[in-house]
Amino acid sequence: MMKPEYSAVLVRYGEIGIKSKQTRKRMTALLARNIRSAIKENKLPIEKIRREWGRIFIETSEPEMVAEITARVFGVVSCSPVAISPATIDAMLDVGFELAQSEFKEGLSFAVGARRIGNHTFSSQDIREQLGAKILMELPELDLSVDLSSPQQTVYVEVRNERAYLFAKTVEGVGGMPTGTQGKVVCTVSTGLDSPIAAFKVMKRGCIPIFVYFDNTPHSQEACTDLAIRQAQVLADYIYGFEVKLYIIPHGPDLDVIKNCAVERATCIHCKRNMLRLAREIAILEDADAIVTGEILGEQASQTSHNLRVISSAVCDYPILRPCVGDDKVEILEMARNIGTYKFAEEAVSCCSLAPQYPLLHAKLIDIEKSEKEMDLSILHEEVKSAQIEYLRRGRSEPRH
Amino acid sequence: MMKPEYSAVLVRYGEIGIKSKQTRKRMTALLARNIRSAIKENKLPIEKIRREWGRIFIETSEPEMVAEITARVFGVVSCSPVAISPATIDAMLDVGFELAQSEFKEGLSFAVGARRIGNHTFSSQDIREQLGAKILMELPELDLSVDLSSPQQTVYVEVRNERAYLFAKTVEGVGGMPTGTQGKVVCTVSTGLDSPIAAFKVMKRGCIPIFVYFDNTPHSQEACTDLAIRQAQVLADYIYGFEVKLYIIPHGPDLDVIKNCAVERATCIHCKRNMLRLAREIAILEDADAIVTGEILGEQASQTSHNLRVISSAVCDYPILRPCVGDDKVEILEMARNIGTYKFAEEAVSCCSLAPQYPLLHAKLIDIEKSEKEMDLSILHEEVKSAQIEYLRRGRSEPRH
Repeated sequence: MMKPEYSAVLVRYGEIGIKSKQTRKRMTALLARNIRSAIKENKLPIEKIRREWGRIFIETSEPEMVAEITARVFGVVSCSPVAISPATIDAMLDVGFELAQSEFKEGLSFAVGARRIGNHTFSSQDIREQLGAKILMELPELDLSVDLSSPQQTVYVEVRNERAYLFAKTVEGVGGMPTGTQGKVVCTVSTGLDSPIAAFKVMKRGCIPIFVYFDNTPHSQEACTDLAIRQAQVLADYIYGFEVKLYIIPHGPDLDVIKNCAVERATCIHCKRNMLRLAREIAILEDADAIVTGEILGEQASQTSHNLRVISSAVCDYPILRPCVGDDKVEILEMARNIGTYKFAEEAVSCCSLAPQYPLLHAKLIDIEKSEKEMDLSILHEEVKSAQIEYLRRGRSEPRH
Repeated sequence: MMKPEYSAVLVRYGEIGIKSKQTRKRMTALLARNIRSAIKENKLPIEKIRREWGRIFIETSEPEMVAEITARVFGVVSCSPVAISPATIDAMLDVGFELAQSEFKEGLSFAVGARRIGNHTFSSQDIREQLGAKILMELPELDLSVDLSSPQQTVYVEVRNERAYLFAKTVEGVGGMPTGTQGKVVCTVSTGLDSPIAAFKVMKRGCIPIFVYFDNTPHSQEACTDLAIRQAQVLADYIYGFEVKLYIIPHGPDLDVIKNCAVERATCIHCKRNMLRLAREIAILEDADAIVTGEILGEQASQTSHNLRVISSAVCDYPILRPCVGDDKVEILEMARNIGTYKFAEEAVSCCSLAPQYPLLHAKLIDIEKSEKEMDLSILHEEVKSAQIEYLRRGRSEPRH
């Protein structure tokens, strides 16, 4: 069987299409740039990237591999390897037939889709009818049937003036908005399931993540930091064209202070307030816009609506984004499977040995602040200075405004 | 065909099951209470609600209607009308056969599921084999086949000591955590798609919503307020056993002040800061824990990560929860369809005529604060006082801690 002569990848984007002309132009330019970074990084060939008709076309000699990579770039809803032919009935029938022969599976229903822009001697309906008939007649061995309302497979022909673009398969993209359409955000990540999902969600909306992991040694198992790095790397691998850093902050000394000065039942409240303050230091250092956490209402005692208020008041000048705050655990698990972070859940290690058995459900801010007065919080700046920085991705370090 | 003699509803809950014993007890009690409110409100009969074996059993003479209502109560993962029989093989076979006869559809595969606790002369496997054989042999007209790995329909038998609970259908529940396991939260709702989803998400996690709608008259179409009330009512109807209020705050006078004092391109930033301040007033009045908004990163110019920071800084002492901040528009649309708020999107009315054509993407906080100094913000308290309050649901007005 002849392999179809694909020569480009057609990229579809979603939400960008409904933006104002000016915003759309800026965002598609960024999307094209990020796609180029992804292709180059994977050492795949690329001739040219064109933006037209609300689509992006990538000319390449490896369209199938390029489509797989492109589908992983935020902003891409789907993409298809395309074959290009002259806009004549004979040429389109030949190429369309080749595609069906190569991509169609036995025993399934099919349809031909066609759209047309420009002046031609044929209509879209002519293409649908003639290509459909040719496929049905000349591929009897595939035992195909026609189903116009819900076909199991389709050949599409898009005619644009003197050229026709044909495709028969579509790779689903990761969706969202192009990385860099939003600013940098500090994503606090642990070894758990929720914080990577929270980070992924804001990354998907176009933010550039700065990951921060709090290393609780000696109050955590040794494997924790390594696990956190590997998990952050999975997330960072969704970012193309931008630098991604992971700050590993020694958090043990702070936990010692908390252990000594705070009521045991309030340990997690103090710890979380402290982590927010440290995340704020990183936000200042990195010129980020927000702090992102994986908190879910009611998942832990420290995450009651009441305690979220007590925790949040530790940082006032940065918004704390909690994209998972209203998600159920089942939804989190499904997303973790899709994203590729679920596998880490199986390595379940205990990353804090100080969590109390009966944590406070309704901490009083006044008590918490009183305890904090007894703590030496000057330590914070030192910890940020002694943070270890891992570069998970190389690229541009600032969003383009 | 005989209708099976259902006499109870078996209720399954999810996340509650993995809580500590103490928390689980508190939460199942609240769930049982909310279910009772839902059934009573719908004027359905209820004999008794029992909590046992990690399940809730509702004894009622209308199990099928009660199951439909119960499935809408937050915290319920699924529920099934059940028939109860003595734990003898003969009795279970009779009842199980009746269920299959009544519920099974023609031509599909089936299986029998069985679990057993207690001392009996038969095993779970005995039940599966004998009931399976009886159904297959005595219902030839249904043309059934056995499929143990992925059956299309199933009869379940749960034996608990001297009683057996049998069921053959399951109603999917709304999931989440029981209303009142979290505190009250102020949910700002507009006539748009996003804010109702944000409210629903925190409600699903157990929060009691206080809805706030900002009436922009004369800068909005007249239909807006009515639309907002109807939309909030759809949401409120998911709450059982607790009071739900909607504050309608006259926001037109503030918009006049903003229009006169602010740079046009910053209108939405000022408006959102103002709405947060008003929401905070309601939070204080209602003893709420947080403010909830429908903001989505990058969806509008006022929702860039940068602008979210500028907007957020208007309120420091309450967390601003944005459960949709990392969602795509396609995800929002799907949820709106499931929840029942999508229909309002078709009534699309313009609820603010002041939105600028070229809004600021990167507002400077210092400029915003300077403009605000020229505004008379004393007006805020007056507006909250003159708010109209709609009672969308009657019930307990405080969570139980």
